Amino acid sequence: MKQIKNVTLPLLLFLLCSVIPPVWAQKQPLPSWNNGPSKNAITTFITAVTDKSSPDYVQPSERIAVFDNDGTLWSEQPVYFQLFFAMDRVKKLAVDHPEWNTQQPFQAVLEGDMETLAASGEKGLLELVMATHAGMTSDEFTEIVKQWLQTAEHPTLKKAYTKLVYKPMLELLDYLRANEFKTFIVSGGGIEFMRPWTEEVYGIPPEQVVGSSIVSKFVMKDGKPVLVREAKLNFIDDKEGKPVGINQHIGRRPIFAFGNSDGDLQMLQYTTLGTTGKRFAGIVHHTDGEREFAYDRDSHVGRLDRALTEAKANGWTVVDMKKEWKVVYP
Amino acid sequence: MKQIKNVTLPLLLFLLCSVIPPVWAQKQPLPSWNNGPSKNAITTFITAVTDKSSPDYVQPSERIAVFDNDGTLWSEQPVYFQLFFAMDRVKKLAVDHPEWNTQQPFQAVLEGDMETLAASGEKGLLELVMATHAGMTSDEFTEIVKQWLQTAEHPTLKKAYTKLVYKPMLELLDYLRANEFKTFIVSGGGIEFMRPWTEEVYGIPPEQVVGSSIVSKFVMKDGKPVLVREAKLNFIDDKEGKPVGINQHIGRRPIFAFGNSDGDLQMLQYTTLGTTGKRFAGIVHHTDGEREFAYDRDSHVGRLDRALTEAKANGWTVVDMKKEWKVVYP
Repeated sequence: MKQIKNVTLPLLLFLLCSVIPPVWAQKQPLPSWNNGPSKNAITTFITAVTDKSSPDYVQPSERIAVFDNDGTLWSEQPVYFQLFFAMDRVKKLAVDHPEWNTQQPFQAVLEGDMETLAASGEKGLLELVMATHAGMTSDEFTEIVKQWLQTAEHPTLKKAYTKLVYKPMLELLDYLRANEFKTFIVSGGGIEFMRPWTEEVYGIPPEQVVGSSIVSKFVMKDGKPVLVREAKLNFIDDKEGKPVGINQHIGRRPIFAFGNSDGDLQMLQYTTLGTTGKRFAGIVHHTDGEREFAYDRDSHVGRLDRALTEAKANGWTVVDMKKEWKVVYP
Repeated sequence: MKQIKNVTLPLLLFLLCSVIPPVWAQKQPLPSWNNGPSKNAITTFITAVTDKSSPDYVQPSERIAVFDNDGTLWSEQPVYFQLFFAMDRVKKLAVDHPEWNTQQPFQAVLEGDMETLAASGEKGLLELVMATHAGMTSDEFTEIVKQWLQTAEHPTLKKAYTKLVYKPMLELLDYLRANEFKTFIVSGGGIEFMRPWTEEVYGIPPEQVVGSSIVSKFVMKDGKPVLVREAKLNFIDDKEGKPVGINQHIGRRPIFAFGNSDGDLQMLQYTTLGTTGKRFAGIVHHTDGEREFAYDRDSHVGRLDRALTEAKANGWTVVDMKKEWKVVYP
């Protein structure tokens, strides 16, 4: 005790300031989550893999966490927000494409005929994407996305799309990063559609975003090196593609993964099955028709069927949005 | 002065410890570099982009530095080290492939006939790569590479390949990271050939390695999710492919790039030309036939011709290895 008395308070503070881990600063993790099975499963997992005396301890460099985007970090109903973007682009570009007035699926977009649009299927959607996402440089496309987000509004919720992100999931991202996790997005959405805003909205930098892509080509244009986006698919980061995309971009197997649909099934399997060591897989279950949307096994967008069945067998955490989230949007 | 006198030393230390940037810790950057034009150009650039009062200041999130690997971070003569790996694999696998004794380019490898091997050209090399790099899981391939590195030796320098990295470049990587740069490899070499060792050797984690790749496929094998490597090219991260790979993986334009051959030309252009703000491009010029190898415009491996000419026009830094590096290997 004598020794301690002799030490001045400033010196103690000085000593402390070099040893306090950043996690101590975060007193109450996940404040928008009710105390329930999901919050408990998450905090138990994080404690186990970050406590150096735990048999499940994982060194920081291996703390890789991957998140689906549509339906996991932001809403995805009534259709993926990127489809709203494509439709708005069609309306804007239509002045230079009079042929679209009588050509599907463009005509359906211009007439607001969602039924015909849906009937055009994958082929129709691909045509929409190519007509609206290709033909410009990467830098130009980034600007187009940024400008769209500044003014576009969700048709029924009447909010900017970047306000339709889930507050509990933002807290989860922060909580993971405070515990020295590196957080990644692994989404079926377009990689260059997400990167312009994920850093500001989620704190996830462009180099930690994995997504679907079209082919880009390097060209010198008026003495300036640019990447021109071509109307040709490069990679589909969905279903079996997600583990491939993870391996291609990250090169390590994640120890923590969150999704919400059957498109995430293989990512959740890849994260948790057949490996040694503690792993976490979570599923956002859309059970809240009042505050958000309620859908699962029969939905056309974000169908959650096989993954919901497998969750039980594999001990994955299924988040009941209605019961477990105090709030949905920030 | 009166106020300062009242402040105790411990308190001063306490205050300091919250404001000292990590860079102060590094007293003498680049000790293996002679004081010369290249060291000067590097330190001048770093000071300009990290000094908050500088008009060239760049915020940390945008401090992206990209490095070629072969010939830039480690040696590449008499042939790329990955080719030695492929040849060693052919010799090991030959017992199960009696047909290779009379089939090129395998016969050439087994007989040590480098001339015939070279004559087999790109097609022959591709056959070698596919026969030795595909047909196993990603995890298995990682183990094969790790084991090979533990015993393999360079044929003339008689050292482990991971000892043939350039000490001055290791210091440069450290110097950049101490100044809050994120360092990436962008190499024509195989992405999964590099990732097993780049973290230990260069301090560059797998998720910051960009390279060429073959196709991987997700499959469940005995209930375990694995990625199987297929004998099919996915992406060539060389020449025009480098900016494409950078955009695909990083999603930001680098502000600092280092290469050594014409394969890096487009990466150096993409980093420096047609952009606003201060940029740095460097070229390792292999001028030291005594300590390493001397080659440039006429070399078959790592040819440096167009990029050397463009370096002058664009103000890129050309490192004279013989004159500017005190040592080559650690």
